[in-house]
Amino acid sequence: MNLILLFKGDFISKNKARLEGRRLKHILEVHRVATGEKLRVGLSGGLIGIGCITCLNNTSLEMDVSLFNAPPAALPLTLILALPRPKVLKRVLLSVTAMGVKRIFLLNSYRVEKSFWQSPVLEPESIQRQLVLGLEQSRDTILPEVLLKPFFKPFAEDEAPILIKDTLPLVAHPAAQTPCPRNVGQPVTLAIGPEGGFIPYEVDKLTSCGFHAVHLGERILNIEAAVPSLISRLF
Amino acid sequence: MNLILLFKGDFISKNKARLEGRRLKHILEVHRVATGEKLRVGLSGGLIGIGCITCLNNTSLEMDVSLFNAPPAALPLTLILALPRPKVLKRVLLSVTAMGVKRIFLLNSYRVEKSFWQSPVLEPESIQRQLVLGLEQSRDTILPEVLLKPFFKPFAEDEAPILIKDTLPLVAHPAAQTPCPRNVGQPVTLAIGPEGGFIPYEVDKLTSCGFHAVHLGERILNIEAAVPSLISRLF
Repeated sequence: MNLILLFKGDFISKNKARLEGRRLKHILEVHRVATGEKLRVGLSGGLIGIGCITCLNNTSLEMDVSLFNAPPAALPLTLILALPRPKVLKRVLLSVTAMGVKRIFLLNSYRVEKSFWQSPVLEPESIQRQLVLGLEQSRDTILPEVLLKPFFKPFAEDEAPILIKDTLPLVAHPAAQTPCPRNVGQPVTLAIGPEGGFIPYEVDKLTSCGFHAVHLGERILNIEAAVPSLISRLF
Repeated sequence: MNLILLFKGDFISKNKARLEGRRLKHILEVHRVATGEKLRVGLSGGLIGIGCITCLNNTSLEMDVSLFNAPPAALPLTLILALPRPKVLKRVLLSVTAMGVKRIFLLNSYRVEKSFWQSPVLEPESIQRQLVLGLEQSRDTILPEVLLKPFFKPFAEDEAPILIKDTLPLVAHPAAQTPCPRNVGQPVTLAIGPEGGFIPYEVDKLTSCGFHAVHLGERILNIEAAVPSLISRLF
C-alpha cells in the first residue's frame, strides 16, 4: 500500500479522517507508524497528499489530511479483455489499474468458459476491491470503469466501432503478421483474447471494424504476462 | 499448454513417447484429441515438432514423435530478482520463463521477509514445475537456470561485477532519474527489488559496481506487472 486511499465516508470533519478494518490493519502491520507520523494518502477521485496521524490504537486511526497534488496521469488506453478465469482476472484488474488504465471492458469470446461469467469475482464489490488495491499500489486515486460485455457480436458490431474513434485500435493476436508497435504516443484501444486466443471469426469481426492485428513475437504469453507486456510496449 | 514438453524418460523407443499423469490429464481435458490426431511437442533442451497419437486411453497416451524445429530464441537477459513472496514467485517464474529469460538469480534484500527463504516453493522440484509450465505456455524447450543468492553483499560485491560484463546493467528503482530505455538491442542484466524497493544501501552497492538506476514512470507497479513491463520495454 504505497498510498492510503480515502473515501468521503472516512472523513469525520473537513480535514480529519478515521480508518478502521483492512487499511488500519495494513498500517499497523506493514507501515508500523506511530502518532505524529505521516502517511501518503489520496482521496478517491481527487488529490494526493499527507495524513498526519493524530490518534492510533488497535481499533482505529485518526489523521489530519492535507491534499495538494494531482494523481499520476492516466494511460490513454481503453482495454478490451476477453474475460479471464476468476483468479487471473483479480490479478489483472489490480495490475492494469496500477498501470493507469481507466476503462476496461470484459468481453465474452468463444474460448471464455461460460462459468467465468457466474464468478463472484465479477460482483461490483469484488471488482472494486481489486481496483482499490491497484490504486494503492501505484499511488493513484482515480478508479477505472469496468464494463461487462457478455455478448461478443453486438459489442464488436455496434459498440467497438464507436469506441475506437480517434484511437489506434489494436487486437493482440499471435498469428498476426505485424509486430505490436512501440511507444505510439497516441490513444489506443487494445483488445486481448482469452487463453487460446480469439477464434478467427472474432479476429475477423474486430479487424473488419478497424482493429489492426498485432503480435508480440513467436512466444505465446500467459494473460498475466501478456497484458503488462503489451501496455508497456505501447506507452 | 501450447506445447507438450517431453523428457528423455518419456521415450519408450527412439521415436515413441508415452505420457501419464499431469500431461495426459491436460491433453484429455483441454486438448480433447483422439488417436491419429497431432499435438505440438518439444523435447526438453532440444527441438520442437509433432506427436502423432497412436494409442490413447484414460491411463496413458502413446505418440510417434518427429522433432524438426528449433525452439524460439532466448532473451539476452540475466534477471536478478529480489525474492518475492512465494505465491508471487511461482507466477513470476512462469511468466519470465514464457518470455524467454534463461538465467534468473533470486536475491536476498533488506525488505525480503526471511521466511520467504524457507518456502517449499524454492525446492528444486517446485521451481522446475513453474519453469516447465512457462515453457509449455510459450512453446519453448530450454529450461532456465534459477540460482538462489541468500546473501546480498557478497553477491553485489563479488558476483555481480562479473555477471554484468558485456551487458547493459540496470537496476529498476522508482526514485531513479533516468527512464528505463526501450528496445536496447544488446544483452541486459536487470535487477528488480522487492515490494517496497531496494534500500538506498543496496541501490548504492549495485550502482557502484556499474548498474544504472532506471524507473518506469511515477507509478510503482506490483512485481507481477513490473517484471513483464520492464522486459517488454527493453526487448
